[in-house]
Amino acid sequence: MTGQGPLTMDLNADVGESFGQWRMGDDAAIMARVSSASIACGFHAGDPRTMAHSCAAAAAAGVSIGAHPGYRDLAGFGRRFMEVDPAELRDEVIYQVGALQAMARAAGTGVRYVKPHGALYNAIVHHAAQARAVVDAMLAVDPALPLLVSPGSEAARLAAAAGIPVVLEAFADRAYNPDGTLVPRTEPGAVLHEVDAVVAQSLRIAVDREVLAVDGTHIPLNVQSLCLHGDTPGAVAMAAAVRTALDGAGVAIRAFA
Amino acid sequence: MTGQGPLTMDLNADVGESFGQWRMGDDAAIMARVSSASIACGFHAGDPRTMAHSCAAAAAAGVSIGAHPGYRDLAGFGRRFMEVDPAELRDEVIYQVGALQAMARAAGTGVRYVKPHGALYNAIVHHAAQARAVVDAMLAVDPALPLLVSPGSEAARLAAAAGIPVVLEAFADRAYNPDGTLVPRTEPGAVLHEVDAVVAQSLRIAVDREVLAVDGTHIPLNVQSLCLHGDTPGAVAMAAAVRTALDGAGVAIRAFA
Amino acid sequence: MTGQGPLTMDLNADVGESFGQWRMGDDAAIMARVSSASIACGFHAGDPRTMAHSCAAAAAAGVSIGAHPGYRDLAGFGRRFMEVDPAELRDEVIYQVGALQAMARAAGTGVRYVKPHGALYNAIVHHAAQARAVVDAMLAVDPALPLLVSPGSEAARLAAAAGIPVVLEAFADRAYNPDGTLVPRTEPGAVLHEVDAVVAQSLRIAVDREVLAVDGTHIPLNVQSLCLHGDTPGAVAMAAAVRTALDGAGVAIRAFA
Amino acid sequence: MTGQGPLTMDLNADVGESFGQWRMGDDAAIMARVSSASIACGFHAGDPRTMAHSCAAAAAAGVSIGAHPGYRDLAGFGRRFMEVDPAELRDEVIYQVGALQAMARAAGTGVRYVKPHGALYNAIVHHAAQARAVVDAMLAVDPALPLLVSPGSEAARLAAAAGIPVVLEAFADRAYNPDGTLVPRTEPGAVLHEVDAVVAQSLRIAVDREVLAVDGTHIPLNVQSLCLHGDTPGAVAMAAAVRTALDGAGVAIRAFA
Repeated sequence: MTGQGPLTMDLNADVGESFGQWRMGDDAAIMARVSSASIACGFHAGDPRTMAHSCAAAAAAGVSIGAHPGYRDLAGFGRRFMEVDPAELRDEVIYQVGALQAMARAAGTGVRYVKPHGALYNAIVHHAAQARAVVDAMLAVDPALPLLVSPGSEAARLAAAAGIPVVLEAFADRAYNPDGTLVPRTEPGAVLHEVDAVVAQSLRIAVDREVLAVDGTHIPLNVQSLCLHGDTPGAVAMAAAVRTALDGAGVAIRAFA
Repeated sequence: MTGQGPLTMDLNADVGESFGQWRMGDDAAIMARVSSASIACGFHAGDPRTMAHSCAAAAAAGVSIGAHPGYRDLAGFGRRFMEVDPAELRDEVIYQVGALQAMARAAGTGVRYVKPHGALYNAIVHHAAQARAVVDAMLAVDPALPLLVSPGSEAARLAAAAGIPVVLEAFADRAYNPDGTLVPRTEPGAVLHEVDAVVAQSLRIAVDREVLAVDGTHIPLNVQSLCLHGDTPGAVAMAAAVRTALDGAGVAIRAFA
Repeated sequence: MTGQGPLTMDLNADVGESFGQWRMGDDAAIMARVSSASIACGFHAGDPRTMAHSCAAAAAAGVSIGAHPGYRDLAGFGRRFMEVDPAELRDEVIYQVGALQAMARAAGTGVRYVKPHGALYNAIVHHAAQARAVVDAMLAVDPALPLLVSPGSEAARLAAAAGIPVVLEAFADRAYNPDGTLVPRTEPGAVLHEVDAVVAQSLRIAVDREVLAVDGTHIPLNVQSLCLHGDTPGAVAMAAAVRTALDGAGVAIRAFA
Repeated sequence: MTGQGPLTMDLNADVGESFGQWRMGDDAAIMARVSSASIACGFHAGDPRTMAHSCAAAAAAGVSIGAHPGYRDLAGFGRRFMEVDPAELRDEVIYQVGALQAMARAAGTGVRYVKPHGALYNAIVHHAAQARAVVDAMLAVDPALPLLVSPGSEAARLAAAAGIPVVLEAFADRAYNPDGTLVPRTEPGAVLHEVDAVVAQSLRIAVDREVLAVDGTHIPLNVQSLCLHGDTPGAVAMAAAVRTALDGAGVAIRAFA
């Protein structure tokens, strides 16, 4: 990537994942480090008050707001696959994005992109009918709104074919298989917990435009956004270390939308 | 009202009150009779698929869509007072209206007004903090969107003071006290069940601009909308009879927004 | 089955599937025809008041009460597969059965069996981990409580191995494949809608101890219970016709527990 | 209280208030200090897995388990008054207690008492119909199960009249009015945050059998249980300090049931 002008990268994290009296994550600290914040929309996490707070915090921090719709499953935090009828899923995504759009407008800003959450995010990598449902929802809401997803996913393919802007992301703290897919969370070593390893992978993604698979294979990975996790212990320190390292390497952190 | 040109009246009814596999009301039949349909937004009834169907049906019938936000209480159908914190209530109303706006846009139309549901509707007649919360929500969503409420309510007063268009409604099938308030549902005779009585009261409201209280008192009542109920047995026949009578009396049925 | 004394059969149906203001099925009419009523426990349908009513109605009708636990999915009526963690599923089944036990005791009766609902019922035909979870729940609640499931299911096998009484059922109105499995609802002809066909299949199951597959194959089927559906249009008439036919054929309708 | 043998007191705290992925409180640490643990039953907090964990932890710690039913309001944590129909509330309490009974039995133990939660606890101090509903639920579940409530409450009066064992409690960290009622949380100084003050009030309640009102009035208070809060920052340190002080003063900490 040398000789092509300054490097830029979007940093995104999930926020607004509290519910009622239950708190999750330190949104303010995370938002001080990222350029894009994906805000839960009430189906797997988040409630209207939390969404309003998150929108206001994002607006104050100059962070780009993304809608983060998930399965209708508060008890499972949207992390369990559900065999939802595609037509119903389409409407559930429209509903969630629309609700967040109103909250964002009330905070004087707007929704700039959509990133599905958890098990829905994973499903639309390969589940054609659910991927189609998400794409149909985005066409109905606003065809100009970008979809933030994984490279190689069915959703990315369908969205691009439908003329929806697609933004691809990589994960700072997830291990990769040689074929470019993520090591499933159920396998050991799926998540990187060492700050040094996460920083190294982040630099490799942002600067070298590649990632190292678990077997050492170099995988070219041309993504516009790097995903940090906001809900784990040490998330804030991790985000700060990644941000500092990218700043130090001359990578301009900039929202894609 | 003579000498003032043709009489007009809006007819409104609650629709979209199904949830998942559970059906309520015959929305198609009701929408063939009314000019405005208040669509449940998912907190007390309705789900995204139902909302999408209702929006499409309203668009097809040329009926004006209203958002019908309620308390977060599916089990109680939003009919139980809840001591919700006003800031939270404000955000819950923004959320619900925003969700319906997206569904309506996806159906090629839009939300034209807001009418709170059930116990929330009743609360904002007198509960200043909750009335204020609803008004604040409407200012945040769109100050030009009309609020449909009862004459003499705290919400009507606050909305008018805030510059929000206020539309007043009367009930075709509810008994009135001499002071113009509704006879509570817990008292006998609160709801009129005879078609003849409902038709007579509708004509009195639309043509004579008054209503008779339970003791015979004539109460002047200058309202722009007449509310029919869509969820009771016989609702469809009742709506048809009222519509026919108003048509016959030369009252033009027209949405206010 | 001749020469072996009088024929007996249990007739079961799902009841208590209303939720809040939403009604489903005519429980009283169904309970007048069946010997066992599987009562929803609040996760996919039912609420405490509905459960109390159903228990009282079952007690009054002399009908045996079964717990009918489902996935935690009101919006989907428990009809969508969910990838629930088995340990969590186990606890969800214990919770639901326990709640119904208290409601049944309050009505002066008790829970006599457990029959999983909808997508959970279907999952435990083949999903070993979820079948194991249901069996573990039953061992925790009461190992003497029978499990009502499909012949050949993983749940039946695991329950029997664990010493739990297993009761097998056939469906009066579902089409069967030649291998004895049900024709999936997504295929045409999966559900029998003609009263004559349902009555014929019921008699064949109860008297001849077999069922005819869609291709005419005779499938021996030795079941103790026959399942009727209570939530479809015409369910009551169907139940009455089946009951009359079985009575007429000398089949004694008797709860298995 | 001298000359009457050794002093004893029950220490109770609310536990099991997590929900799904959301954690609240450090249940293990709290259970090491108290003699009675009131476990949320899924309506305002808690889920089956959390309830199972809490029951197992209580059994392991030798702590007495109480059912802690609340309003059906996860989003509000059961802290908002709801105008629930008494018959429905009765059934909701039976349901919740029954569910916990099954979870406790699965953990090899049982439910020893019932203590309503939050806004329901506050309502039944004065709301006769809701107090009656709770008492009716307890009569239906098990008339021998004690009810843990505030002195002077309507629920205490009705329960005693119905023959239900009543156990009264005082609060270690709440300020009292001269008439013995609690200073509402909405007023300044309602909650004691200083460890010294909480310890002093605890000793006064356990040893002197009185409490000092905000104006210095001595209020005789003959209670069998002292309530600690488990969900506040510093809750564990507070519980440890109170326990140490009571142990030091020779007060035997013992469950009442």
